[in-house]
Amino acid sequence: MKAIEWRDNRLIILDQTLLPLEEKYLELNDYHAVAEAIKTLRVRGAPSIGVAAAYGIALGALGIETQYCSEFLPLYQQVSAEIASTRPTAKNLFMAAERMDHVVASGTDVSQVKISLVEEAVKIHHEEEEASRKISAFGAELIQPGWTVLTHCNAGPLATAGYGTALGVIIAAHQQGKNISAFATETRPLLQGARLTALELKEAGIPFKLITDSMAGHFMQKGVINAVVVGADRIAKNGDTANKIGTYSLAVLALAHGIPFYVAAPSSTFDKSIESGRDIVIEERKPEEITQIRGQRIAPENIAVANPAFDVTPANLITAFITENGIIRREAKN
Amino acid sequence: MKAIEWRDNRLIILDQTLLPLEEKYLELNDYHAVAEAIKTLRVRGAPSIGVAAAYGIALGALGIETQYCSEFLPLYQQVSAEIASTRPTAKNLFMAAERMDHVVASGTDVSQVKISLVEEAVKIHHEEEEASRKISAFGAELIQPGWTVLTHCNAGPLATAGYGTALGVIIAAHQQGKNISAFATETRPLLQGARLTALELKEAGIPFKLITDSMAGHFMQKGVINAVVVGADRIAKNGDTANKIGTYSLAVLALAHGIPFYVAAPSSTFDKSIESGRDIVIEERKPEEITQIRGQRIAPENIAVANPAFDVTPANLITAFITENGIIRREAKN
Repeated sequence: MKAIEWRDNRLIILDQTLLPLEEKYLELNDYHAVAEAIKTLRVRGAPSIGVAAAYGIALGALGIETQYCSEFLPLYQQVSAEIASTRPTAKNLFMAAERMDHVVASGTDVSQVKISLVEEAVKIHHEEEEASRKISAFGAELIQPGWTVLTHCNAGPLATAGYGTALGVIIAAHQQGKNISAFATETRPLLQGARLTALELKEAGIPFKLITDSMAGHFMQKGVINAVVVGADRIAKNGDTANKIGTYSLAVLALAHGIPFYVAAPSSTFDKSIESGRDIVIEERKPEEITQIRGQRIAPENIAVANPAFDVTPANLITAFITENGIIRREAKN
Repeated sequence: MKAIEWRDNRLIILDQTLLPLEEKYLELNDYHAVAEAIKTLRVRGAPSIGVAAAYGIALGALGIETQYCSEFLPLYQQVSAEIASTRPTAKNLFMAAERMDHVVASGTDVSQVKISLVEEAVKIHHEEEEASRKISAFGAELIQPGWTVLTHCNAGPLATAGYGTALGVIIAAHQQGKNISAFATETRPLLQGARLTALELKEAGIPFKLITDSMAGHFMQKGVINAVVVGADRIAKNGDTANKIGTYSLAVLALAHGIPFYVAAPSSTFDKSIESGRDIVIEERKPEEITQIRGQRIAPENIAVANPAFDVTPANLITAFITENGIIRREAKN
């Protein structure tokens, strides 16, 4: 399984909405299709979104049939703007678009700019792969032999176009022979835990249990969970962290049970332009994600639903951040 | 909609597993069918389970074709034992079976015992109806005008064969014109919140939002939830309370946000025979409830799953119990 692959100027993505029932790869030749794939979560997970966005912008640029800068620029801006407007929360998306825009801003020749855009997208992909490998190695040092680690949503290879962040930490600890096991929360509404994390844990040969989101507190109370590790979609300057809805509840529960709570994320997820979590835009997704599961209605018709895709965990609930540059512990305040 | 009705010595139940898509009533003429209906949650909610169990035992007794005590007694014991073994957690089930057994123990004539058993079942039903009405009235006094109240799982009319306990409190406060609104957690795995509470809130005309279980913390953090009210399946002598899985997490979150956490339950749910929550048997249900939703697979095959149907909330997280005898506040400890 490979979430994202760039091959002969085409983008191949694994349609994550169909997993685990079907492993279907989509060949995207058109940046609109990439935008659609990001919006509908065929490709998801903050680092994977960033990588797909970069390739999507490259694809859009390659499709602009002109050699004149004056014609290329406004069309490129349309491409970049459409890709950047697909989802509002993950920092990696905007980081990728900014880097691509920077390539265009510093270019002089349209043909050369197109080549440079593809190179930049490939570079972003490689950097994310490399970052996820380092994050996993640093994070594994925090995991003690025999521990049971809970993770939420999916921050594995599928989410990161690489080795994984939160799930990468668990996989790396397992591969070091630490005899660990895991709990995966199913992660309603879109069940990334049940569909994707369960699949990746199974493939990695790590003993684990799938639970509903509502069971995490119960198993913490029973003393069977030693650590929580999650990914992130955007981290503000003060450390407040937006991640999949339900993360905040897990952080409060972890604190109440004296369990360390780790956030694993690459630099591309850190947003130095915002002071705190108050400034993070939380995506509200469509009600049908709550009232239907895989097309089957599970609730009465014509009811009100709230469907925030993310929540914000305040920095003071986070034991440490695991980044490609090492572990950042919360400063002790006296 | 009426969860349970006794009509001409037959038990009519609404099949709650089909709601909200279909409103189908089942006529049960056989106590095995009642046992099956309890096991498969066609009838559920601690008070409703107790009422259905009593009628089921009456039905079984009516079907015993003998006038001799010596023949009747062992057959009755089979009936009572089968009904009592359907589910392990809800106290109301055992309370009902004990009361029916007591009728038999103090009877002398088989025909008269059968009549008395039916009368006792009807009495249990009426008592639960009456208790739920009083609970709702007492509880409504705790709800301030304009409040938004969160409830978990379903403790409304369907669950209580009456007015409701936790949801009864919300409905009563609404009917008093307190201008309240509600949040209903969907309550995975079996979605009693999405399927049943949403239906009952909608029918009562109460403004509400349906959310996933994982969103409760987020909305508490946003300050939009003023109180949590839940039902109970069994309450130990020290106040530790077994209720639908996820309740414990909500109680921890409520405490962390300074939100009152109320448990609404009739006397039949209090178990004076056990000291604390440690002695409450938690039902583990089948893995398919987690890996499938309405028959559709949502997780990889051959994975391990945990599926405790209940958790235990320690008494110290419960602001007050709402019973038919009034409000019981936790003793202040100095």
